[in-house]
Amino acid sequence: MAASLQKSALSPSGDRELLLQRFGEARARTTELTAPLSTEDQTIQSMPDVSPTKWHLAHTTWFFETFVLASAIRDYTPFDARFGYLFNSYYEAEGPRHPRPERGLISRPSLEEVHDWRAHVDEAVQHLAQSIDQRGWRKLRPTLELGLQHEQQHQELILMDIKHVLSRNPLLPSYGAVARKNAEARPPSLRWLSFPGGLYAIGSDHDEFAFDNEGPSHRVWLEPFRLASRLATNREFLAFIDDGGYRRAKFWLSEGWQVVQHHKWEAPLYWGGEAGARMLFTLGGERPLDPDEPVSHVSYYEADAFARWSGKRLPREDEWEIAARHAPTEGHFASSGEFHPRPASGDGLTQMFGDLWEWTSSAYAAYPGFRPAAGALGEYNGKFMCGQFVLRGGAAVTPGAHVRASYRNFYPPGARWAFSGTRLADDDA
Amino acid sequence: MAASLQKSALSPSGDRELLLQRFGEARARTTELTAPLSTEDQTIQSMPDVSPTKWHLAHTTWFFETFVLASAIRDYTPFDARFGYLFNSYYEAEGPRHPRPERGLISRPSLEEVHDWRAHVDEAVQHLAQSIDQRGWRKLRPTLELGLQHEQQHQELILMDIKHVLSRNPLLPSYGAVARKNAEARPPSLRWLSFPGGLYAIGSDHDEFAFDNEGPSHRVWLEPFRLASRLATNREFLAFIDDGGYRRAKFWLSEGWQVVQHHKWEAPLYWGGEAGARMLFTLGGERPLDPDEPVSHVSYYEADAFARWSGKRLPREDEWEIAARHAPTEGHFASSGEFHPRPASGDGLTQMFGDLWEWTSSAYAAYPGFRPAAGALGEYNGKFMCGQFVLRGGAAVTPGAHVRASYRNFYPPGARWAFSGTRLADDDA
Amino acid sequence: MAASLQKSALSPSGDRELLLQRFGEARARTTELTAPLSTEDQTIQSMPDVSPTKWHLAHTTWFFETFVLASAIRDYTPFDARFGYLFNSYYEAEGPRHPRPERGLISRPSLEEVHDWRAHVDEAVQHLAQSIDQRGWRKLRPTLELGLQHEQQHQELILMDIKHVLSRNPLLPSYGAVARKNAEARPPSLRWLSFPGGLYAIGSDHDEFAFDNEGPSHRVWLEPFRLASRLATNREFLAFIDDGGYRRAKFWLSEGWQVVQHHKWEAPLYWGGEAGARMLFTLGGERPLDPDEPVSHVSYYEADAFARWSGKRLPREDEWEIAARHAPTEGHFASSGEFHPRPASGDGLTQMFGDLWEWTSSAYAAYPGFRPAAGALGEYNGKFMCGQFVLRGGAAVTPGAHVRASYRNFYPPGARWAFSGTRLADDDA
Amino acid sequence: MAASLQKSALSPSGDRELLLQRFGEARARTTELTAPLSTEDQTIQSMPDVSPTKWHLAHTTWFFETFVLASAIRDYTPFDARFGYLFNSYYEAEGPRHPRPERGLISRPSLEEVHDWRAHVDEAVQHLAQSIDQRGWRKLRPTLELGLQHEQQHQELILMDIKHVLSRNPLLPSYGAVARKNAEARPPSLRWLSFPGGLYAIGSDHDEFAFDNEGPSHRVWLEPFRLASRLATNREFLAFIDDGGYRRAKFWLSEGWQVVQHHKWEAPLYWGGEAGARMLFTLGGERPLDPDEPVSHVSYYEADAFARWSGKRLPREDEWEIAARHAPTEGHFASSGEFHPRPASGDGLTQMFGDLWEWTSSAYAAYPGFRPAAGALGEYNGKFMCGQFVLRGGAAVTPGAHVRASYRNFYPPGARWAFSGTRLADDDA
Repeated sequence: MAASLQKSALSPSGDRELLLQRFGEARARTTELTAPLSTEDQTIQSMPDVSPTKWHLAHTTWFFETFVLASAIRDYTPFDARFGYLFNSYYEAEGPRHPRPERGLISRPSLEEVHDWRAHVDEAVQHLAQSIDQRGWRKLRPTLELGLQHEQQHQELILMDIKHVLSRNPLLPSYGAVARKNAEARPPSLRWLSFPGGLYAIGSDHDEFAFDNEGPSHRVWLEPFRLASRLATNREFLAFIDDGGYRRAKFWLSEGWQVVQHHKWEAPLYWGGEAGARMLFTLGGERPLDPDEPVSHVSYYEADAFARWSGKRLPREDEWEIAARHAPTEGHFASSGEFHPRPASGDGLTQMFGDLWEWTSSAYAAYPGFRPAAGALGEYNGKFMCGQFVLRGGAAVTPGAHVRASYRNFYPPGARWAFSGTRLADDDA
Repeated sequence: MAASLQKSALSPSGDRELLLQRFGEARARTTELTAPLSTEDQTIQSMPDVSPTKWHLAHTTWFFETFVLASAIRDYTPFDARFGYLFNSYYEAEGPRHPRPERGLISRPSLEEVHDWRAHVDEAVQHLAQSIDQRGWRKLRPTLELGLQHEQQHQELILMDIKHVLSRNPLLPSYGAVARKNAEARPPSLRWLSFPGGLYAIGSDHDEFAFDNEGPSHRVWLEPFRLASRLATNREFLAFIDDGGYRRAKFWLSEGWQVVQHHKWEAPLYWGGEAGARMLFTLGGERPLDPDEPVSHVSYYEADAFARWSGKRLPREDEWEIAARHAPTEGHFASSGEFHPRPASGDGLTQMFGDLWEWTSSAYAAYPGFRPAAGALGEYNGKFMCGQFVLRGGAAVTPGAHVRASYRNFYPPGARWAFSGTRLADDDA
Repeated sequence: MAASLQKSALSPSGDRELLLQRFGEARARTTELTAPLSTEDQTIQSMPDVSPTKWHLAHTTWFFETFVLASAIRDYTPFDARFGYLFNSYYEAEGPRHPRPERGLISRPSLEEVHDWRAHVDEAVQHLAQSIDQRGWRKLRPTLELGLQHEQQHQELILMDIKHVLSRNPLLPSYGAVARKNAEARPPSLRWLSFPGGLYAIGSDHDEFAFDNEGPSHRVWLEPFRLASRLATNREFLAFIDDGGYRRAKFWLSEGWQVVQHHKWEAPLYWGGEAGARMLFTLGGERPLDPDEPVSHVSYYEADAFARWSGKRLPREDEWEIAARHAPTEGHFASSGEFHPRPASGDGLTQMFGDLWEWTSSAYAAYPGFRPAAGALGEYNGKFMCGQFVLRGGAAVTPGAHVRASYRNFYPPGARWAFSGTRLADDDA
Repeated sequence: MAASLQKSALSPSGDRELLLQRFGEARARTTELTAPLSTEDQTIQSMPDVSPTKWHLAHTTWFFETFVLASAIRDYTPFDARFGYLFNSYYEAEGPRHPRPERGLISRPSLEEVHDWRAHVDEAVQHLAQSIDQRGWRKLRPTLELGLQHEQQHQELILMDIKHVLSRNPLLPSYGAVARKNAEARPPSLRWLSFPGGLYAIGSDHDEFAFDNEGPSHRVWLEPFRLASRLATNREFLAFIDDGGYRRAKFWLSEGWQVVQHHKWEAPLYWGGEAGARMLFTLGGERPLDPDEPVSHVSYYEADAFARWSGKRLPREDEWEIAARHAPTEGHFASSGEFHPRPASGDGLTQMFGDLWEWTSSAYAAYPGFRPAAGALGEYNGKFMCGQFVLRGGAAVTPGAHVRASYRNFYPPGARWAFSGTRLADDDA
């Protein structure tokens, strides 16, 4: 989560109003996303990986208070000195913190107090940014930008997490009024698009904002490869299931097979009902499974097993990034208010951005020449480079302005609560 | 929780108004106890043994709806048919139910809806009881009485459970405005009271209300014994700690010693601070430990180890019951609004009722001739007769009208979140 | 395991030869029981509760070296000073010890070295006992007797434990040549024998050897009761299974029902095959289940559920002890070499001693006036008085001379690897 | 473990005697390595990752019986049909198998029977290979070669595993007479060797034997890099420890830091004693820690943390492989009989082969164009490509003929019982 400070993408003076406007919008958007939720909804932690909505509201505020206000204002007095312990996520350099699995035990401060804190910090940030001199602004600007990007990440997490919370309630309640697009024609059949091999540069050179883990830009050699024109669909995944996909070890990584057996997985997360009458839990409540929609909430293990069963493989992250340069960055993002992937439509390489994060076969690792950002802000990305896989492209719960071709998301191979899907790849021999 | 129906303690007709008045008071008291709590407070489950306040409010309502309304009214339509699954506690005969450790995952129905449900059921019960014929009333009355006793049990559980919930918050918040009695003179020094041996009858003959596990009345042979005149104090327990009580295996049951080491216990639950500056978390927040108060929130293991260290033992439950007949049933109960035990005062056998439940060395087991009540209501007591120990006398969070000399509470030996204390006993050789 | 020293049952001088002869026989019998086993068999620990055969051989030797030789001989030099750490079982007073679950990790000392140690200690004990003066002998004799009783306990444990070890091998190997009695006539049908209520004395007064937990003798009041004339059979238990015994919560203690579901129990331990072709693993290998044999290797939970299903209950330990005074102490013990219970035969109260240990409904607790023996030897019995139930009467793997009417064995309610069975009881109203 | 069959490295006819001679030597070497061990030593499984020596002896035999004899001989009758279930490691295609964590529960077949089985299979393989026609030989030869390589892998595993078994015995016994080289001069100080960037081919083209995961040969782009001239030493690692290495989160991967805290790691595996008097457990028993020896038995987490503390990084596997082409493949391997790494000596790039496996920062993944071998033999490598890191170069317990520059070993990041060490790398900016 630490922005590279080497080359800042932010334009010179004059950008202050623009950034503060984006800051205000981002903060307001977070609050807006929590509006359909009751106080109780916002209190619950349904598993250690999930955080309560209230925690997200507080943690993002802590981020601005700690890294913007407290670092820029001498003798800054925090809103409540006890909140640092409660709402630090994992910044070891910022001192001890409340254990992650216990975030659901915190009834106080109340949701109302957290909103008061948000308003207090927002006002203080606006005041600071408007009153600081130009030298101070140059120092403040990257951290403010980073906080804004961080805020957007938590907007997605709020939706991911509350979906899991609501799914654990036997009543299967809806998050609230969720937009729904009318069904269209059946999605185009899957086609294969070829990309030539050669020496490519991938990664961000930080001309515009990018997290530190996206750089530095560096050369890679690729052999010719092919990518599927769209995400794999529920219909295709059902064929895998019907062919015994979850009962035949030969398709699975050894570790994945153990997970399947231990958790008795028989379908992706959020699937309900039975063969012939499959249901899907969404943020709009439970619906009949639409076979034309992309299959969602699959783990890396399932994506990989499906690819093997298909006689294909998952893309590598550099293949994905090279191909993505040929795709429009528009896509179906959180702004639609649907919070659910749509069936594919259109020609060429579709759904590269939005709809669902796409698992790649690349373990999340440092790029050659990677250096974490300095200080506490450098803790985010580097220290998770172990045991996770890269996902690319954003999802229907991601703020559209947040992703780009070089963006690297990452989750452990067994995680399924992210909005994750599958695009097939192949060698182009 | 199933009342013996053999002999009802309730007087003949004419008692209808009285019982309905007690019903109304009990239901109102439950609501009153939750008034200081925020919606968030009432949502949280801090460990599998603890239930959210909202769950208690709903479960007690489910009890009246299921065992009173639905069993007396033909074709009764429940307020919400889905609530049975969510708020059945453990009555297997009433069908499948939501797993206990997941009670904290239920944000909906909302607290407000639960209160609506309560009001709806209360009104329906009142209406039913006033309109039913005398034959129906005779059948209804014991279940209504049982529901009322059950309601009182959950009043205590609400206080016990929320204390644990609040204690897990690093801010150590207070439950609300809690009454506090001014400090008195130091409690009287401990004296030993002797009781002769012989053949005694213990247990309830159900002339007045009693749970099924309190009967039948039966004969036991006791050898002469002695009881301490009051509960053990924090001062006495500190001497045990200072003498290495938690570090010397010789005082402990083998299983208790394992628990001490596994959980790294060094003091009773809710103790904070350090030697010389001990603190105690109470429903009124954290306070300096008062050495004159009875030691509270000890497990059976700790009570037993303390007794061995003292060269004494814990009382057997029949010894306790025989002695309790010599004590006034008045005591310090929940009506004081203090929700915390007081230092002992007075002469003779004190603190037998109220202040703290007293661990006995008796494993919780069926009395000779015990028969569980018929139907789902018979599930409560019999099926827990394994691995638990009996506690007697009630505590400062117990409704005073709820306990009696024959009352048998029970918890596993490692439980500490109940308001449990220790009275020493000895053979009278 | 600590003998009461108050009144020793051993006769005055002149008994030295007799005791040494019994000592020699007991030690030789232990070795004899291990003769059919390979070195590998004797190395393995199949679960934390089980100890390797080699460990039993060593631990019993450590007992004599520590409590007899080292306490009687000034400056005694142990055979190997490192063995104390490895082969102390749970005597905290004797210092730190190797963790129980890791007994199967000890390949050295070798089995051969352990046998050398046994021979060395046996000779030293014989020499000491023959050369010590009469005053020393009076002090030595009770510990020697206790060691001998302890040796016998481990003879049974060796058979219990190796049965479990062998059962975990998919080849289901036999312990060795095991005697087998020819099938007899079908066992007599179950009859009910009545016993009058009244004031009884139970427990040992230590006129002959008894463990400390068997005393002191004390009075109890019993109501009239009935006992089944024999143990419950596999045929009767099959009827319970066929009636859905393992699938219906209503028969089970709450804790037992959780265990059944967690471990997916569907039959007693060591049952194999399927309905219609049931098999039973024995120390002689796997055999077709004989419906006339007593049902064995049931947990307390299963014995209790079976009793509830039968409309009866388990006996209390004092009921059992009173009844046992009317039964012959002969029975089917380890000396037959069958190591497996036989079908009942004969009239009256049969199978009270031998065949299988009988679960009682009595939690294992201290008798009134109980005082543990002094020193390390007092650690055995008192510290396990929590969470266990008493079993009575001995089994087909118990040395016949080891049990008596007052003998109290005990296991946790979920334990099944002991040779445990079920006798029904009832109130005699 | 599946050899690529595309291009076999084995020369045409005439190589039969040579291969059979190598087969005989490899099989004899395995037996020779177990000679110092007692039957008990060979029975024990000290953790799920470890297999008993007897299991290794049996499993390698099962491999030849299943993949060589049973696939080449029509109606082959196995030595014992029940052994397939017991000694299959993880080949799902070969049917169900005994769970890995229960390998230590198998006392029978005895060690002697396993040796009989080995002799039987060895003879049958020799007979088959000598009598089969040339066409059959061409088919048999790659599988025989693969079995031989597999045998060599298990020779190393036998030493790794028994070291762990012996280390869990408080007596810290020695494996047996282990050779010991006299101390030499202090190792040369660490130098940095530079390698130019560019487009390289790495991986095996299978001109000689290689496992399937080593290929296909493919192009990679590398930036200029530097490698340390030797492995990191105990002296260097002690400096890390003394600087608070195990207590400061900033050096650690997030997951590694959790492991450190959970397991309370304070030093590499097999370190004993205390600061100032450090000891090291080796296959020759416990010795004072030699600061000049390479640090061994470190996890990936520790290697990575040490590298960060050093201001450096671990090498990528392709960097290592390119550099290794400049180093002699001679090294200190198992043939020395020392089974322990030596201090570095000599100039240039030393210790690349032998002494210790070297952690790389490369997650174990498929090379571009990788295809698993067909059939059951294809199960080995592909299905473990998740959650593991690549190690290179072999160790002092590896058969020298077994490794090569393209050889890819792999372990999860928390594994420490392999003979693993650390070489630092850096960018050459």
